[in-house]
Amino acid sequence: MYYGVDMTNYFDYTNTTEEKIGIKGVSLKDIEVMEDTINRAYNGVINKYKNKELGFMDIIYDENLNKYYDLSKYYTDYEYIVVIGMGGSILGTQMVYEGINGMYSNEINSNTKKVYFLDNSDPEKLYGILKIVDLKKTLLFIVSKSGNTVETLANFFIIKEKMDKLGCNNNTIIISSGGILKDIAEKEGYMLFDVPENVEGRFSVLSSVGLAPMSCMGIDIMGLIKGARDMDKLCKNEDVFKNPALMYALIHYIFLNRGKNISVLMPYIERLHKFGMWYRQLWAESLGKDGKGQTPIISTGAKDQHSQLQLYLDGPKDKIITFLNVEKFKEDFIIKCPNHYLDNHKLSKLINFEQLGTEEALTSKGIPNTSIVLEELNEYSLGKLIYMYEMGTAFMGEMIRINAFNQPAVEEGKKITRKLLEGKSIENMVKNKPNEKYLIEI
Amino acid sequence: MYYGVDMTNYFDYTNTTEEKIGIKGVSLKDIEVMEDTINRAYNGVINKYKNKELGFMDIIYDENLNKYYDLSKYYTDYEYIVVIGMGGSILGTQMVYEGINGMYSNEINSNTKKVYFLDNSDPEKLYGILKIVDLKKTLLFIVSKSGNTVETLANFFIIKEKMDKLGCNNNTIIISSGGILKDIAEKEGYMLFDVPENVEGRFSVLSSVGLAPMSCMGIDIMGLIKGARDMDKLCKNEDVFKNPALMYALIHYIFLNRGKNISVLMPYIERLHKFGMWYRQLWAESLGKDGKGQTPIISTGAKDQHSQLQLYLDGPKDKIITFLNVEKFKEDFIIKCPNHYLDNHKLSKLINFEQLGTEEALTSKGIPNTSIVLEELNEYSLGKLIYMYEMGTAFMGEMIRINAFNQPAVEEGKKITRKLLEGKSIENMVKNKPNEKYLIEI
Repeated sequence: MYYGVDMTNYFDYTNTTEEKIGIKGVSLKDIEVMEDTINRAYNGVINKYKNKELGFMDIIYDENLNKYYDLSKYYTDYEYIVVIGMGGSILGTQMVYEGINGMYSNEINSNTKKVYFLDNSDPEKLYGILKIVDLKKTLLFIVSKSGNTVETLANFFIIKEKMDKLGCNNNTIIISSGGILKDIAEKEGYMLFDVPENVEGRFSVLSSVGLAPMSCMGIDIMGLIKGARDMDKLCKNEDVFKNPALMYALIHYIFLNRGKNISVLMPYIERLHKFGMWYRQLWAESLGKDGKGQTPIISTGAKDQHSQLQLYLDGPKDKIITFLNVEKFKEDFIIKCPNHYLDNHKLSKLINFEQLGTEEALTSKGIPNTSIVLEELNEYSLGKLIYMYEMGTAFMGEMIRINAFNQPAVEEGKKITRKLLEGKSIENMVKNKPNEKYLIEI
Repeated sequence: MYYGVDMTNYFDYTNTTEEKIGIKGVSLKDIEVMEDTINRAYNGVINKYKNKELGFMDIIYDENLNKYYDLSKYYTDYEYIVVIGMGGSILGTQMVYEGINGMYSNEINSNTKKVYFLDNSDPEKLYGILKIVDLKKTLLFIVSKSGNTVETLANFFIIKEKMDKLGCNNNTIIISSGGILKDIAEKEGYMLFDVPENVEGRFSVLSSVGLAPMSCMGIDIMGLIKGARDMDKLCKNEDVFKNPALMYALIHYIFLNRGKNISVLMPYIERLHKFGMWYRQLWAESLGKDGKGQTPIISTGAKDQHSQLQLYLDGPKDKIITFLNVEKFKEDFIIKCPNHYLDNHKLSKLINFEQLGTEEALTSKGIPNTSIVLEELNEYSLGKLIYMYEMGTAFMGEMIRINAFNQPAVEEGKKITRKLLEGKSIENMVKNKPNEKYLIEI
């Protein structure tokens, strides 16, 4: 790798240390005095795991992955895959699909399945996808653990009505543990996959939620699982200096306590943008409780050097930054431009050296930053990354003393939406109507 | 609109007031005592404008837009448009293109030009675009005010070499005021557009930078300009209660001083996601200086209710939120599902009521939020929105006493990258090499 580090993949927290960023940095002593916190976090997670509360740690040892592979054999007569779901029901699948295939896959590969993700209640989005796909040739996944997610139901009801009319509703697969979706699956005889009760949506990508659709998209799901299993071994190490997830959490905990209320994840490869979006839910929804938590931000290198870097370098010192670097890109180009310093360089060298320049500039300004360096981005390394972040989030939840596995605050808004749709008048339902005094016509 | 407000488009700051969010809110008295700040901001911007420092305020009165319309007549024999640029050279064009056409335009419309944006030094991205487009049928825009942006040059050199080999380099248009790009344009006889000296990249969307490519994409650029001109009149009003940009800045300034170091922009329509990305550069790069500024975040409704809302509602109280709402969607669907409260509702009603539910939940928790409500999203209303944010950013810059029109901090990293590419050894260039002690193999 750039510096001749003798490891294929590694987590690097050098630039959070006193040695590099001065007195604002972490010293070995800072870490030693955190021993109680580290032990509390480690034991908290391991105890929950032993109590069977953390299904995401068990599912990766499911021996029967064939049920997913069989699926892609059972359904063959389709050209499109549409996944309907919200948040944790869909983001993980999207993240893996794009992480492996990149962002232009639907337009580049004329002979592979085209894949679409319906993850909002925006009617223009539904319209766009329906214009593109042929429902008669579409494999449809509907994913909602509760089976009652309102946006998912709305999109599904609209598509189902069209499919029923076309007589092509045999290619529907439901992934749900209850609610209306499970009822429909049973009534209509759709194939149904359960979601384990003890796996929260945002931790569910390596369960049926992700593995069923991914196997039909040609993802090597066994590669993902192997990566997660290898990472699991590292994350069960009590020694924080050898446990990347525990150290990741600790570093973030220390800097959160030093006023860094924002955590930036900055991949220097566009295929990992959706990984960022997945991490963003994981970190925000797991930890944002009781006035605690840390706001995650996704930034994409090198392009955000032309958008966000000025703020990171010279704005408020409220951020800790993590780079995601991949050494080998799947494709590359040589730049030819005589008399210019770019001449004869690979494009991948430019983006990797831009990351180095940014890292150096941040460190020189005393801004803490860590890096996760991967030799290649494939199912195996992505599986490692996914599981490291799941464990890191679990450890962080213990450190800040919240329950990382619920999301109680979002119910209130849902209730209001429901009552409005049920015909309750806005005047009765909504206290906070606009006051004409505070409106400006534009 | 939802509440029977008698305005077509408006900015609403009701939910930042004491009446709605209690003592943490803004009172009329709070605003009155800010008179000096308001005047300083207003006069600061107007004086810079009169001194011809703020080109973005002048360009919207350019009478000669025909040069852009002519362009789309002059070049006719192409099926693809590729724009190469970084940050402010490309984000504005992307924002308008997607804001008008939505995200699936390339796949839906078989008879319109397909449009691609090359805005990174990621070789996989370049590979993807080159796999899709036929360079012989491609109109190519290269945009860089300085003419020396390294990622733009790298992508351009690689594509130019291919086009030269194919003998199809006549469809290249350069938008630049100098540097290597201008030299090449002159040497090769490419059509060349200047960027006015006093227009910063992130404020340049309504100059040649955006208008030239947009006119070839079928955007009604006159509609954009008309919207901006109408907004300009409002933004020149000294009365903060009638000036939406000045009030937007003031509200954000007040809450920044009350510890809200994060500003969330949350459109409830996916077409505005890229507007968010454009705003994100504008707000971050203009204001993030001298330890000051406010970190912008883009969130997309309704989907981020399943990802970020838990954090916003129950995490640290460090945010001010702005909703972007559009009443009428271009497409819509009726949901049919007997015995469910969604039955017979339009999908647009669901997303709009979800926004209301979220707004109500935030307000009940005392979290300040504003809304910009548009009846429809088209070139005219988007032009208004763009210009309101440009002016709001300019006013905010005066309030926090920084120069909103430079970005001095980003040079350091660029220098390091350049020296590395010039062959300086990493050991000499980079002080902050990883220390093996702080690496964990993964």
